[in-house]
Amino acid sequence: MGVASKKFGIAVLSFQVVFLVLFALLTTYDSEADARYPGNSLDPDKNGTDPERNSIAKYYPMFQDVHVMIFIGFGFLMTFLKRYGFGAVGLNFLIAAFVLQWAILFHAILHAAHADFAAAAVLISFGALLGKTSPLQLLIMAFIEIMIFSLNEWIGLTIFKAVDVGGSMFVHVFGAYFGLSAARVLYNPEIDKSSKEGSIYHSDIFAMIGTVFLWMYWPSFNSAVAAAGDDQHRAVINTYLALAACCIVTFAISSLTDKDAKFDMVHVQNATLAGGVAVGTSADMMIQPFGAVLIGCIAAVLSTVGYKYITPGLNIKLKIHDTCGVNNLHGMPGLLAGICGTIAAWFASVNTYGYSLYQTFPARAPLANSTSLHKIQTVLSIEPGDGRSASTQAMYQAIALVVTFFVACTAGALTGLLLRLSIFDGPRKYSRLFEDTLWWGTPEDFEEEENESSGSRNGEKNTGELLNKNAFDEEKV
Amino acid sequence: MGVASKKFGIAVLSFQVVFLVLFALLTTYDSEADARYPGNSLDPDKNGTDPERNSIAKYYPMFQDVHVMIFIGFGFLMTFLKRYGFGAVGLNFLIAAFVLQWAILFHAILHAAHADFAAAAVLISFGALLGKTSPLQLLIMAFIEIMIFSLNEWIGLTIFKAVDVGGSMFVHVFGAYFGLSAARVLYNPEIDKSSKEGSIYHSDIFAMIGTVFLWMYWPSFNSAVAAAGDDQHRAVINTYLALAACCIVTFAISSLTDKDAKFDMVHVQNATLAGGVAVGTSADMMIQPFGAVLIGCIAAVLSTVGYKYITPGLNIKLKIHDTCGVNNLHGMPGLLAGICGTIAAWFASVNTYGYSLYQTFPARAPLANSTSLHKIQTVLSIEPGDGRSASTQAMYQAIALVVTFFVACTAGALTGLLLRLSIFDGPRKYSRLFEDTLWWGTPEDFEEEENESSGSRNGEKNTGELLNKNAFDEEKV
Amino acid sequence: MGVASKKFGIAVLSFQVVFLVLFALLTTYDSEADARYPGNSLDPDKNGTDPERNSIAKYYPMFQDVHVMIFIGFGFLMTFLKRYGFGAVGLNFLIAAFVLQWAILFHAILHAAHADFAAAAVLISFGALLGKTSPLQLLIMAFIEIMIFSLNEWIGLTIFKAVDVGGSMFVHVFGAYFGLSAARVLYNPEIDKSSKEGSIYHSDIFAMIGTVFLWMYWPSFNSAVAAAGDDQHRAVINTYLALAACCIVTFAISSLTDKDAKFDMVHVQNATLAGGVAVGTSADMMIQPFGAVLIGCIAAVLSTVGYKYITPGLNIKLKIHDTCGVNNLHGMPGLLAGICGTIAAWFASVNTYGYSLYQTFPARAPLANSTSLHKIQTVLSIEPGDGRSASTQAMYQAIALVVTFFVACTAGALTGLLLRLSIFDGPRKYSRLFEDTLWWGTPEDFEEEENESSGSRNGEKNTGELLNKNAFDEEKV
Repeated sequence: MGVASKKFGIAVLSFQVVFLVLFALLTTYDSEADARYPGNSLDPDKNGTDPERNSIAKYYPMFQDVHVMIFIGFGFLMTFLKRYGFGAVGLNFLIAAFVLQWAILFHAILHAAHADFAAAAVLISFGALLGKTSPLQLLIMAFIEIMIFSLNEWIGLTIFKAVDVGGSMFVHVFGAYFGLSAARVLYNPEIDKSSKEGSIYHSDIFAMIGTVFLWMYWPSFNSAVAAAGDDQHRAVINTYLALAACCIVTFAISSLTDKDAKFDMVHVQNATLAGGVAVGTSADMMIQPFGAVLIGCIAAVLSTVGYKYITPGLNIKLKIHDTCGVNNLHGMPGLLAGICGTIAAWFASVNTYGYSLYQTFPARAPLANSTSLHKIQTVLSIEPGDGRSASTQAMYQAIALVVTFFVACTAGALTGLLLRLSIFDGPRKYSRLFEDTLWWGTPEDFEEEENESSGSRNGEKNTGELLNKNAFDEEKV
Repeated sequence: MGVASKKFGIAVLSFQVVFLVLFALLTTYDSEADARYPGNSLDPDKNGTDPERNSIAKYYPMFQDVHVMIFIGFGFLMTFLKRYGFGAVGLNFLIAAFVLQWAILFHAILHAAHADFAAAAVLISFGALLGKTSPLQLLIMAFIEIMIFSLNEWIGLTIFKAVDVGGSMFVHVFGAYFGLSAARVLYNPEIDKSSKEGSIYHSDIFAMIGTVFLWMYWPSFNSAVAAAGDDQHRAVINTYLALAACCIVTFAISSLTDKDAKFDMVHVQNATLAGGVAVGTSADMMIQPFGAVLIGCIAAVLSTVGYKYITPGLNIKLKIHDTCGVNNLHGMPGLLAGICGTIAAWFASVNTYGYSLYQTFPARAPLANSTSLHKIQTVLSIEPGDGRSASTQAMYQAIALVVTFFVACTAGALTGLLLRLSIFDGPRKYSRLFEDTLWWGTPEDFEEEENESSGSRNGEKNTGELLNKNAFDEEKV
Repeated sequence: MGVASKKFGIAVLSFQVVFLVLFALLTTYDSEADARYPGNSLDPDKNGTDPERNSIAKYYPMFQDVHVMIFIGFGFLMTFLKRYGFGAVGLNFLIAAFVLQWAILFHAILHAAHADFAAAAVLISFGALLGKTSPLQLLIMAFIEIMIFSLNEWIGLTIFKAVDVGGSMFVHVFGAYFGLSAARVLYNPEIDKSSKEGSIYHSDIFAMIGTVFLWMYWPSFNSAVAAAGDDQHRAVINTYLALAACCIVTFAISSLTDKDAKFDMVHVQNATLAGGVAVGTSADMMIQPFGAVLIGCIAAVLSTVGYKYITPGLNIKLKIHDTCGVNNLHGMPGLLAGICGTIAAWFASVNTYGYSLYQTFPARAPLANSTSLHKIQTVLSIEPGDGRSASTQAMYQAIALVVTFFVACTAGALTGLLLRLSIFDGPRKYSRLFEDTLWWGTPEDFEEEENESSGSRNGEKNTGELLNKNAFDEEKV
């Protein structure tokens, strides 16, 4: 008898039935997708909507890039573990598809790009927990996390009127610290006994598929929801430059911190991406090319040093076991992004942005009925704002960052407590960690390899480990 | 002496020479790609064609997504077999590139997206036969299939005036049942003796590259040829939702139908995609978000249950051996798509579509010279139609589905009969099935593994199998 | 003690500091990415710039395709070696990210697509040297090559006014012969003793990821910088057709030249792409569909025959060891492209191009103040040209090709001489060639396999080879 249970299937089907009902009750097509919308039934020159200016043409290519990041990028990035490849790419697929629906419903609108961002937050949390949970635990976590995520984002955008074009605060910081807090609460001393938390040669190459797709398409992630035109163009350029600098500095630091001056695949797979996170909040701001390059360099150092020194420390000292090192790829670079965004907001002025300032920072637009608003409206159609000063906007950027951090930590810890309930089938024994055979039908070569590795033929140290079927069955969950 | 022969190379070169002549005789650039076209040599404001409104800008990103589905999606999806990875991705590449040219020539136009759809039909048939044919057989099959495929599609679109935006009837149903009928005729009792029809751990992960790219880009497949504007937008949304629901329900059913409640990689690799097929015919119709979700859920159950119970039954009872389970991924979901399309057509009205009804269902537009046409033409430039009622359109949708099914079955069976001729080098002996070494130069590790697996060291059951070079040579084809 | 040294990290950091300073001094946003640009702060109907006509919308999807070719395409194509997968995809990543920055700075503009083309040239050179250099050598090579590359391209485009839309001369010929000349100078007789210059089954499948992405997105590469409209559309169609024909002819020739009529994965991975190179220079010209197909066929024969017969000959006779066979994929097909471009330019006339002739070949436009220019300017806004005849333009096309070839050979040889300096840590001993463990921390299974393969269990011939740690340390570099 295995550890997997029918509970999972029943839970998924129950969620899906609820989703179906909610879709019927809450959703309909937006006017741009609704045949009944009068403009869509008329010719453009007879007051109809020009089909070639439908928003699909504008967002679709970048949306698809983000979609690739979510499903190929995150999915394959996590295949690095030698015995958890099915779990990595398979559960990533499951959880992301679950979140797409739930996030759409929770917003009660059909804005697909946003649903993909929400999926990113949950998949980042999954990265902290990779190999240490049951599918059922992940499902429950995703269900809860999306609600808190949406609420926090709403507070940040609507109450604080902070801006965060690449979601570095609302997606990366939130997802990372939610997951790390849950990992703390779910801490399992058996982890130290496992010999499976490592890669093999080809699993590291599979992971590079994920890395490279994430790296290439990150400019789409950071610019997908930017204002059309120069804002979006700038977000692409800044992200591209930050990533290029981050990549090569990661190689340098990886080599310099190794006693044999060799590169570490963990750094290449992960820290090369930190520049995309770190520039996320300020990607559409006038940080200049050299600013983007500088942010990328700092992120590379921060992230590589994090993998080398901080992650082991967190595990030993704080009992926070972070399988994918999300603190280094998403957490600390996300905090850096928030700080860079605060600084960039502090220095933003009409001198450096022109009237575009009020597109990038809507809350800085003059108050309704003010004379300065009237003056601007003669050349630019903008909504009235709060008339914020640069320093006020910067302050709210910082507040959004701090609030996001604390909301994520608290919610993650509470969710972790819930997930500890034995009803959710969390694996405890070391032999059940980082192991696909618990949850997946696996092919012959995989079972076999498992038996081999339990022998001492390879000289592998696996003291006290007995990876036979009995070991799995002995455990009472 | 191997089984591969020079016949294949000679056949390909002969085809290519004929193609070259036909390209010279039959094809020229469309006006949008022809420098001589007068508008292309003039400024837009001097009666020239605006280069930024050239159709390339509109179709290219979605076309490239479909291209990725054909070459990466289908190619890698089929790499799951442990000893047929070269054949999967390599022959997929060959056959698809062959079909692109032949389909273009058969249409005698340069409409690339259509050629990629035609490739999909042939690659689906290939999936039913994977590992059981010679490259020469595949080439001949592709040559014949494209002609019948084009004819059937022409009948469906032009005679029956059925609509099928995602090609679920004309591509998926046709390709699946053409391939399954051929598989029946080519049935080989030696299949049961082969121990190679299975995956290994890393071949399953390679296959997931195919799955995920197919899943992500399916909205492009179902909307690439939709009418610009709301129709295309709706096709994207419906496909996205159907796939998300299908993915998670597949995981649920896969776990619930397994005795140990484990997930089956075959289901995750394939059944997760069934929602894209099942929503294909109705993707641009006003089925509402919940309708798309519902179709995705049904497709997941149908497809997963098909893999679990129907495929083994077809093999044992009807001697239809379906290597990739195309009946479950393309056949039955395609039939479901045709039925959903029929139902959605039945309920379509000006109330629910506005005048867009006549863009989605051109045959429902009023007859030429009718007063109702004149009334519509004051606000919308449309061609006159057949003045069909909803029920008449629905009837023709159903007729197109039934005709496609029977044309595919008949043509596939006849093609299979032809392919049985020994001149086409079809492999018969069990040791030649699902095996790359027959057709490919393979690296050392691959030969070696083969020898190992013929021993009994692994405890693998391979009764009566002798996988040495002699075994291959003994056979007289 | 390993061979890798801290020099590499220090060199990279030094470069990055210089880059950062240069970015600060030399670069700023283009008007389309600069919030301060007055048009970007105004409404379109108040003399502002329409954000939806920002150039990002036009170039971004094709730019991303090229980006995928550079990082996934080149990176994975080179993973075919059994023990150099980390080096292939990892160093490809490093070098490309380095070049992106350096090429931008050297142009002192932010035109990202061009930077990706420059990266392609360096990565082609890398292909000739794969597995035989230290990371530091590659870095220095990239630094030098970009300067010569940019200079040669500038001469070709500005002095000779040659056209080369797909960069087959300026990127492919240049990159290939630069790399081959360097390989000649760096020739190492120890190569023959290595048993590691081969693939394993799964490394060949990883390489196919690279092949297929390069193949699919090559139409984007050849059309990304074409004139908008029919020129770009034609470049897509011609490349698509040349590649389709090239793919199937490669399979044919691969089988026909094999004694057992089997396919060779090296051919399928590489020669299938030669059509994209060979059609590159003439892709936007009026070569007609059959012309594109013909070029693709010739390229396939040339490239496959090159892999089969010429590469071994170059190695033995001329001591040019070409790891990836870049002479067959980029060199000879690039020369073919230059010749086809010359011929196509010879036959180009207003009869076949209309006034578009002067967009495709700007130097053929009439001289300033000529009456023929005035006549054209009534219907087309063009810059005055040199009033070249077809034969003059053809002559300059040929000159650009010849000059590129000789510049590349000379610069590559000189760079190779520099790289021979022992300060750059180039590996010499056979055991250090095609081997990841020298430069990368590698997982357990990889070390282990290495020990196994030194034994004679596999029957592998590895006479005189001792792959233990001592062998690595013995060598004094």
